[in-house]
Parts: sequence; structure tokens; C-alpha cells
Amino acid sequence: ILICHALSGDHHCAGVHSMDERKQGWWNFMVGPGKPIDTTKYFVICSNVLGGCQGSTGPGSINPETGKRYNLDFPKLTVRDMVKAQSLLIDHLGIDRLHAVIGGSMGGMQTLQWAIDFPERVGRYIALASGARHTAQAIAFNDTGRQAIISDPNWKQGNYEPESGPAEGLAVARMMAHITYLSDIGMETKFGRKRRSQSSREHFDVEFEVESYLRYQGQSFVTRFDPNTYLYLTKALDRFDLYGDDKSLDSTLAAVTAPGLIVGFTSDWLYPPQGNREIAEALLRLGKDATYAELAMDFGHDSFLVRAPKLYELMRAFLSR
Amino acid sequence: ILICHALSGDHHCAGVHSMDERKQGWWNFMVGPGKPIDTTKYFVICSNVLGGCQGSTGPGSINPETGKRYNLDFPKLTVRDMVKAQSLLIDHLGIDRLHAVIGGSMGGMQTLQWAIDFPERVGRYIALASGARHTAQAIAFNDTGRQAIISDPNWKQGNYEPESGPAEGLAVARMMAHITYLSDIGMETKFGRKRRSQSSREHFDVEFEVESYLRYQGQSFVTRFDPNTYLYLTKALDRFDLYGDDKSLDSTLAAVTAPGLIVGFTSDWLYPPQGNREIAEALLRLGKDATYAELAMDFGHDSFLVRAPKLYELMRAFLSR
Repeated sequence: ILICHALSGDHHCAGVHSMDERKQGWWNFMVGPGKPIDTTKYFVICSNVLGGCQGSTGPGSINPETGKRYNLDFPKLTVRDMVKAQSLLIDHLGIDRLHAVIGGSMGGMQTLQWAIDFPERVGRYIALASGARHTAQAIAFNDTGRQAIISDPNWKQGNYEPESGPAEGLAVARMMAHITYLSDIGMETKFGRKRRSQSSREHFDVEFEVESYLRYQGQSFVTRFDPNTYLYLTKALDRFDLYGDDKSLDSTLAAVTAPGLIVGFTSDWLYPPQGNREIAEALLRLGKDATYAELAMDFGHDSFLVRAPKLYELMRAFLSR
Repeated sequence: ILICHALSGDHHCAGVHSMDERKQGWWNFMVGPGKPIDTTKYFVICSNVLGGCQGSTGPGSINPETGKRYNLDFPKLTVRDMVKAQSLLIDHLGIDRLHAVIGGSMGGMQTLQWAIDFPERVGRYIALASGARHTAQAIAFNDTGRQAIISDPNWKQGNYEPESGPAEGLAVARMMAHITYLSDIGMETKFGRKRRSQSSREHFDVEFEVESYLRYQGQSFVTRFDPNTYLYLTKALDRFDLYGDDKSLDSTLAAVTAPGLIVGFTSDWLYPPQGNREIAEALLRLGKDATYAELAMDFGHDSFLVRAPKLYELMRAFLSR
């Protein structure tokens, strides 16, 4: 089973790396012995995406032709490129056909691209909290995040040193993006208007709990993510468009042969249910073996990342169908 | 009639200032001879809010005690302070009682505060696209905008020179905020995935129309708005809470005596209909003369600012009731 990670994820999807590095992977609930993606049954692969900053070649990698980092010389990147790189990886591993390709958000887009580009290599696929293309609103949020990075003077046209990059801009981009991953009701339930203690608060210091949470998200992101990678990956997402040049989802999806499960989440306003449903409807119009589930969950776009027995059961059953 | 403006608005609500300055005010559709707020019938007042940067005293004003700009020495500001300042203005104008107080968004909050603090001076009130307090999500967006400003090195702890302030940070804050003023469906209809021409596009230059629109919004905002004012006003909004210390909307609204019209807009996700409805429901529970209208419009939070005959009729009728 190949798992495709989301924008801010990486190859470390489950378990711990070592006794020294005990942080669990981002999909630890889902992947492991006896879990829905059961590692006693399946061999699970998750690689860092092309363009990423956790091992794959990306803008921060050394260009062998110049001996310097690519930075903005890194070529324009697409979701299709990410999938092509993964296909070379499974070639290298000697795998002809995957039991399944699975991913949420950007990972869901890769999953769909796998089903389109390599129908003979995909046994089945599950695309969660995804869509055939970005809405204007999603592009707008991404471009605002990019502007936060680009307008940080430490960006230096992409030629920053890794230890002194546009951390402030990236943190702002991440704070904003993080809001779009949650839902209004989810934030209200978790934070509401709860305040931090009043002690020694300066003007514009953290006052509300939700501010503290988001600033922490921003600050911790910059310790693990490369700003140029953020620019490249968000652009790849904005350009992703399964409607293609002839504006027809049906013609793009015609190549799919594997059975597919598409999952949308009611409170996801970044990749709304409607966008997930459209894919399933096109697949069904084309007579494909496809199904759609819309789960009522309050965690917004991030719903696919949280503990949810109803999602587990759905995936477990589809994988062993 | 007193009109209370929104966060990024000002006292120039209608008409033109002079033949040299022909930009129309922000509510020009609504205010003027024969318009819903009919200047052949009513004398209309709109003042720049306290803390603002278009004439009222704000963080950019000179502190008479020091001869320097207040910057962060400007006191913490509340919506109630804004209303208090307006009441001093109408004292000065020799007006005992206003025919009506009207406002949308931050202006709607001022309007509600007027009805609460000065019941004997308010003939009626209309609060549009407003609410009793910010949701966690609204606070989260505001704090992200503040962080964009504060993390701009030109902010200098608020002690920038006006001509070299944190323009980049303010532009990012504005781009993000502007997305929250629109709606997903509205942006999709207006922009969709339309692209700009391909000519000589560099990496991360404007590609989609929606990016161009938003970047323009960001750039033009910095020419007319003071970053410290943005910090102070957004904080005043985040702290505004008609639920008060005893968490009861009813006890706060008990003071209201004037008839009120509350208007929510279906596509407003920043100040959602539910938050507007709560106010009307509390007023009705208290036996007040109040009514609620929920208008189906696709322009998001900004719906109160667009040409909309059904809104015009509602306001015209309520004002002459």
C-alpha cells in the first residue's frame, strides 16, 4: 500500500523512528499492526514528495550542475511529477502493482493522479478530503500565504541560507492555512473565547487560547519546513486541475480502471464535500467501480487526520474487499 | 441618522468630497438624495472611529504630553469607547436624540452598543452583518493578521515612521481579511480559475485573476490605512462581547429601548447569520421591539456593502416606520 502525504506532512506516517525520536507519525491512528491499514497484512510505503524538504529532492537540495541549492532554479512542479517520482520508487522496489494507493488532501490528489496515470499498477484507491481542482478561495488563501513568505525580507528571492530564511513569513502562512484546515464549529468547541492568564500581558501578546495555539503552530512549522518548498507545493496544488484543457472531468477520469473510494467531510470548507462528490459522480457516470462516503465530522479539512472509528471501518472494509 | 463605519471604512460614506477627489463613499448606493438613507429627509452623520487613521485620534496622532505619536502608548480601545466618542460629537452638534443609528460589521457592533449605552438618544437602530462577539475563528484570523504586521521588521514595536511602516505585513493581513469578507461561491462566480495572460511570468508572479485582485486589495490598503490602527481596531473587535461578564446576552440587552432591525446574510461566514439571529432572539425574549431579516445573498460578509434592492427596501421601510 502506498500512502501519499499532504502538504505539511512527510514520509513518517506511523510509528516512531527510534527510541531517541519518539514522535509518532502523522497517521499513527490509521497505520500499524491491527489498525485499518494493517501492517500485519500489508507492506506500507510512504515517501516524501518530490519538491519536499524531508529527504526528497526539492528547492533546498543541491543542484549537481552548480554545486549550490536549486532554490528558484528548481523546475516548476506538478502533482503528476510527484506521482511519477513515486512510480520510479516502486520500480526500484521491484513492485509491479500496489494493493492500494491512499491519501488525504494533497495526498488525495496524488492518489487520483495515480489511478489516472498508472491504472495497471493500482489495485484500488482511497482519496480523502480531496478534489479535482482548487476553488478560487483555496487559491486565494495559498497566494496570501505565498505573499507572506515572499514579502519577508529574509526570503531574498528564494536565496536565503536555511538557518536564516523567511521564518516569520512562513509562520504567518502556516497560521492562516491552519485555520483553513479546521472548522468554525471545531474551533468554537475547542477554544471558544477562552483566555490565557492575564499576567504581564503586553499589547498584542497572546490573549486568547486560540491565538496561543495558532502561534505555536506557526512557530513549530518553521523548524521543520522549508519556505521555498511551501511555495512550490502550494503552486502545484493551485495548478492541479483534473478538468484538464477540455474542461471535462470525465475525459480525465476515463483512464481509471481500479475500484475507488472517495471520502468527503461535511465540515471541510477548504476541500468541500461537493468537490469530492463531483469526482465520484464523474466516475459513476463513466461506469467505473467507485463509491462515495460523506462523513459528518466537525474537524474540518483535518477530519481525515483524527481518530474516527467510522472512517477506520470504511477503510478497513474497502481495503479487504 | 448616525452611520457607524466598519474596520476598513471611514467617515466618507457617500458622495464625493470635491471635484478633485471624486471617489465615492463606501455606502454611496445607500446614502444620498432619494436613496434608502435619504438625505432629502435625514441629516446624516458619519465620523471616523476613535482609534482610526482618517481624522480621529488614533495611535498615529500626536500625544500632546510628549509631542510625539502615541503609537503603542495609545490606550487600549473598545467598541464602547468609539461609541462614547460619537456621543460627544453629537453633544457638540447639539443633538439630543438620533433618528437612527445604523452600521454593518464593526459598525453593527457600534450600533448595538449605542442602543445599549444610550437608549434615550437612539430612535431606532439597524445592525447589519454583525454579532454579539467574535467566534474563535474570527479571533484566529485577526490574530494572524496582527502577526503579519508585528513580524514585519518595519513595524519596529509600533514605532515606525508613517512613510516606512510595515506595509508588506499590512498588505498580507488585508489580503487574508479580504478573503473572509467574501464567500466561496462569490469568489468562484467572479474569478473561478481564470488566469492572467502568460506573458513573461516569473515564478510566483500573479497567475490567477483572484491573486491579482487580492494583491491589489493588499497594496491599495496600505496607502490609506495605518498598521497600528489595524492592530488596535482588530483587538477592539476581538474583545467586544455583549455576553459580558455574566455570560448573558439578555442582561446586556436589557437596557435597550429603541426598536431594532438586525440583518444577517446567508453567505456571511465571518459574522454568520446565527450570530445575528442570537441577538434578535435575545431582544425578542426580553419583549423588545426587534426584528430579524436574513437575506440570501452570495457576497459573504460584504453583502451589506453591495447594491441590493431587497436590502434597500427593508431599510427604507424601517427608517420611516
